[in-house]
Amino acid sequence: MDISALQRRLRQFSADRDWQPYQTPKNLAMAMTVEAAELLEIFQWLTPEQSVALDDEQRRHLGEELSDVLLYLVQIADHGGVDLEAAVERKLALNAIKHPPRS
Amino acid sequence: MDISALQRRLRQFSADRDWQPYQTPKNLAMAMTVEAAELLEIFQWLTPEQSVALDDEQRRHLGEELSDVLLYLVQIADHGGVDLEAAVERKLALNAIKHPPRS
Amino acid sequence: MDISALQRRLRQFSADRDWQPYQTPKNLAMAMTVEAAELLEIFQWLTPEQSVALDDEQRRHLGEELSDVLLYLVQIADHGGVDLEAAVERKLALNAIKHPPRS
Amino acid sequence: MDISALQRRLRQFSADRDWQPYQTPKNLAMAMTVEAAELLEIFQWLTPEQSVALDDEQRRHLGEELSDVLLYLVQIADHGGVDLEAAVERKLALNAIKHPPRS
Repeated sequence: MDISALQRRLRQFSADRDWQPYQTPKNLAMAMTVEAAELLEIFQWLTPEQSVALDDEQRRHLGEELSDVLLYLVQIADHGGVDLEAAVERKLALNAIKHPPRS
Repeated sequence: MDISALQRRLRQFSADRDWQPYQTPKNLAMAMTVEAAELLEIFQWLTPEQSVALDDEQRRHLGEELSDVLLYLVQIADHGGVDLEAAVERKLALNAIKHPPRS
Repeated sequence: MDISALQRRLRQFSADRDWQPYQTPKNLAMAMTVEAAELLEIFQWLTPEQSVALDDEQRRHLGEELSDVLLYLVQIADHGGVDLEAAVERKLALNAIKHPPRS
Repeated sequence: MDISALQRRLRQFSADRDWQPYQTPKNLAMAMTVEAAELLEIFQWLTPEQSVALDDEQRRHLGEELSDVLLYLVQIADHGGVDLEAAVERKLALNAIKHPPRS
């Protein structure tokens, strides 16, 4: 996935709709959280076992909500001046230190 | 960003720590929402203007929370059997129909 | 508001619908977060100024989402064995220590 | 619980700390969602069974997070002009229609 290309497409999409004034990092963070909760809603009454055996309709729904979260996420990175790939690598390195593998 | 490679690294990371039993899609969706809210917290008392002019420390913090959300997101896609890139393209096409550009 | 009476009504409501197996504290916490995000959605594209001047329809919607959050909240307290009034008083006392008034 | 008295105490608490400019309904909705997610975090890696058998420390933590959500909730109702008790009764009536009891 080419994150920079995706960010450029989303900038153009917003410009074509005059959405830029609404898309502050603050508002985009709210929108991303709303979408994360819509994804959470898919699983709220499922047992752990049901959550690992989604049917086709649930999987399609999950893909839609994952996309909604991701599209806001790359826009927050773009508008907030974050290099997402560098941030992910740094985080993976931190996680490896914070949580050493079992011996 | 190579999503499949990232998913493989995270599967290995979890296996090395015996975390697989905890990582049901249900629990991963909870964890992703928790991280989204930690990102939201950065912005909760900021004005819209302050949210577009983050300082270096805020930007570093934002990068960390964005990474946390993204790392859970790609794991949910992986464990839930969702092709993330295909889902994103489908969502972008749907959004273009749902929100036509201004004429 | 009589919290205990409300908790009894909600227990009866759930029993009449055979919902008890679904209403673990874990699932209720997910449902409460989903409702909190639906409330958040009301405000996501509003300016701070617009958010303090809601119209009647927005206020009705807000009342509905606040109720949804509160109904799950009192159920979590009930099922989790938390005395909500005592917990609130303890929290208010902690907040007063943590955030001393300006002199 | 006397909701109006609680709202008056929280108004005074904020005034004593000059917090009013920050406490728009928009920002309070963000803060409430952040607290809801902190409550969610308690349960994220617990099994359904573990979530119904909290120990004393988990129960104390749960009480603290429930209080945080409730304190923001009553402030949103106050600043948003919502009569919370009336809204709850209306919602309970709606829920009874939407979800008829099993026969």
